[in-house]
Amino acid sequence: MSDHVYKVIEVVGSSTKSVEDGIENAIARANETIENVEWFKTEEVRGSVMKGKVAYYQVVLKVGFRLN
Amino acid sequence: MSDHVYKVIEVVGSSTKSVEDGIENAIARANETIENVEWFKTEEVRGSVMKGKVAYYQVVLKVGFRLN
Amino acid sequence: MSDHVYKVIEVVGSSTKSVEDGIENAIARANETIENVEWFKTEEVRGSVMKGKVAYYQVVLKVGFRLN
Amino acid sequence: MSDHVYKVIEVVGSSTKSVEDGIENAIARANETIENVEWFKTEEVRGSVMKGKVAYYQVVLKVGFRLN
Amino acid sequence: MSDHVYKVIEVVGSSTKSVEDGIENAIARANETIENVEWFKTEEVRGSVMKGKVAYYQVVLKVGFRLN
Amino acid sequence: MSDHVYKVIEVVGSSTKSVEDGIENAIARANETIENVEWFKTEEVRGSVMKGKVAYYQVVLKVGFRLN
Amino acid sequence: MSDHVYKVIEVVGSSTKSVEDGIENAIARANETIENVEWFKTEEVRGSVMKGKVAYYQVVLKVGFRLN
Amino acid sequence: MSDHVYKVIEVVGSSTKSVEDGIENAIARANETIENVEWFKTEEVRGSVMKGKVAYYQVVLKVGFRLN
Amino acid sequence: MSDHVYKVIEVVGSSTKSVEDGIENAIARANETIENVEWFKTEEVRGSVMKGKVAYYQVVLKVGFRLN
Amino acid sequence: MSDHVYKVIEVVGSSTKSVEDGIENAIARANETIENVEWFKTEEVRGSVMKGKVAYYQVVLKVGFRLN
Amino acid sequence: MSDHVYKVIEVVGSSTKSVEDGIENAIARANETIENVEWFKTEEVRGSVMKGKVAYYQVVLKVGFRLN
Amino acid sequence: MSDHVYKVIEVVGSSTKSVEDGIENAIARANETIENVEWFKTEEVRGSVMKGKVAYYQVVLKVGFRLN
Repeated sequence: MSDHVYKVIEVVGSSTKSVEDGIENAIARANETIENVEWFKTEEVRGSVMKGKVAYYQVVLKVGFRLN
Repeated sequence: MSDHVYKVIEVVGSSTKSVEDGIENAIARANETIENVEWFKTEEVRGSVMKGKVAYYQVVLKVGFRLN
Repeated sequence: MSDHVYKVIEVVGSSTKSVEDGIENAIARANETIENVEWFKTEEVRGSVMKGKVAYYQVVLKVGFRLN
Repeated sequence: MSDHVYKVIEVVGSSTKSVEDGIENAIARANETIENVEWFKTEEVRGSVMKGKVAYYQVVLKVGFRLN
Repeated sequence: MSDHVYKVIEVVGSSTKSVEDGIENAIARANETIENVEWFKTEEVRGSVMKGKVAYYQVVLKVGFRLN
Repeated sequence: MSDHVYKVIEVVGSSTKSVEDGIENAIARANETIENVEWFKTEEVRGSVMKGKVAYYQVVLKVGFRLN
Repeated sequence: MSDHVYKVIEVVGSSTKSVEDGIENAIARANETIENVEWFKTEEVRGSVMKGKVAYYQVVLKVGFRLN
Repeated sequence: MSDHVYKVIEVVGSSTKSVEDGIENAIARANETIENVEWFKTEEVRGSVMKGKVAYYQVVLKVGFRLN
Repeated sequence: MSDHVYKVIEVVGSSTKSVEDGIENAIARANETIENVEWFKTEEVRGSVMKGKVAYYQVVLKVGFRLN
Repeated sequence: MSDHVYKVIEVVGSSTKSVEDGIENAIARANETIENVEWFKTEEVRGSVMKGKVAYYQVVLKVGFRLN
Repeated sequence: MSDHVYKVIEVVGSSTKSVEDGIENAIARANETIENVEWFKTEEVRGSVMKGKVAYYQVVLKVGFRLN
Repeated sequence: MSDHVYKVIEVVGSSTKSVEDGIENAIARANETIENVEWFKTEEVRGSVMKGKVAYYQVVLKVGFRLN
């Protein structure tokens, strides 16, 4: 197990609801095309504002997955 | 549109409830005195603790708005 | 009051639910063995993924408490 | 002269042409409403892309000016 | 629109002429194989020197594109 | 108290005497035009040199104040 | 040669033996599916511990390769 | 001597007088309960403001000591 | 398992031989007084020089362990 | 070739025209007194402002050269 | 004046008295062998501890001087 | 001893064998022309790749020496 190699990609998930929802959206999308997603790390939390309210959160993530 | 100039200010929103609520509070307050708020970026999430619980979250934000 | 000395420790709280819940778990645990916990600062939000969903959030915190 | 106080603001200039033009746009706009602008520092160079070309550069600047 | 997911890749563009030209080269090349490129962010500007002159600029970029 | 919003500005204080004096100068000046200044954070300590001696210290500060 | 474009990916190599071995493992694996790998940069050296010994090193790398 | 292991803790010293005095307060307090304190490194200089003056400096330090 | 809390300490291991040996020394020492050490992260690799050779490596580590 | 040692110095080039011109000025000057200059890396782009225009750009560079 | 080139060196000044005194010591020493020293920037403030007191401060500085 | 001044230079050592060997090469070379080299700090570990293997490691170091 110790000689596994992982790849890390950067994705941005967005959500009108919450930071956690933005993370889930990004990971669900990454999971559609890659296998063995194992972890994530939040790089940045930003967002868009309209009429004095958060329109949506944008969460920049590093996502790591094991290469076969 | 490409020659717009934006200003970025730093504000700290606080909330007893959640990180997202602290962000909304800061943006709502900024929106009272400035126009065209368009985006935010989270710089730091910190908070105050009382009796072993989070008393309130403090979210340091950069907030960007378009200058007319 | 101005000559108080504080100590800052680093802890990692985890939660299946939310970032805020991971913060609360870490602070509650720190509060079991140390007194006068006064503030925290989030250093990193990461997590574990299983089957395309967040299995749990891991929130790395600095936690500050006043030394008597 | 040594006891002067300066203020530093953050602005974002954009330009369809070049990084330098984005800097000039931001400084010209800042100069409309503040006096004694003396220096700038580039914080970030980013931009928008359309059809495989840079649509416009966005240059995030710190701009310093002397307070009277 | 708020639930879009973006991917961010890192590329290095080079040019004998200017920083902007290095950025354009990198984006044009990225655009050949990926769709919906929307933004870039400059990470580093470096270069090679020969006989006391810049031989070419190397611009390290993050490039973001929307996933369908 | 937990829902207060703070604003953070960046100022540079200078002094021929000491780092602390540069901080005091910057805060005294900020206090002339804004209310409720509550904290500061040092971002950078630099200075000017003449004839092999420090001519003046320049202290870059973030200064936070509570919005009413 | 000066107008080449490079892509940079992030991989994590692990090894029970040494940091260098973790780097070699990551590069060998990257080399299986991509051509023209030319350089790497170490981002982070971490590892897993069991019974008071390093079980394996994990080396996070940026790996750069030339695009044709 | 070369195989010594050191531990590094983080403390915050405060003082109404100066940065140096805040450092000395933090180290004196650390020295009450730990042995072999050998070095410190300043992480952050911040402070509290009252009526337009520094009420007290807070100096965040890493403090290193040799383990027996 | 997801609600575990971890503590992270900072230690400096030294070795006349190699970076890896410095890491092992630090972890072995940490393991003498704490249980459940699970991971480490290298913060800094520095060292002492004598007569143009490395006298010993000093590796600054974060070491994480699970709290019961 | 693999056992070459390089030295890296820090220089600041200035120009009234452009960032690239500031880089060329710094490298040309470094080349007058050192041999084998091979690469540069931009550390900071700042500048001086007069009457609402950039008076000159200042580009802080690391410049690397091979030692014989 | 705008086409001047500056060189920046890194020095460490120490003092048993204060941070400012360490800065002055470093600059005075640099001034012995180089001309046109114009500015400094503090990179790090650290120090040595003996018997629970600061034995001496070590201030890491960047020092800039104009090349003729 | 506390009023010594040190200078810090940046060098890059390379080696086909290991990170430690790259460090030794850089320090040995620095030692040829400067006296009193006392410490080093690793800034970056990178390298060149050929045919899927590390061709050589390049270790960027800060090297400190005492000025007489």
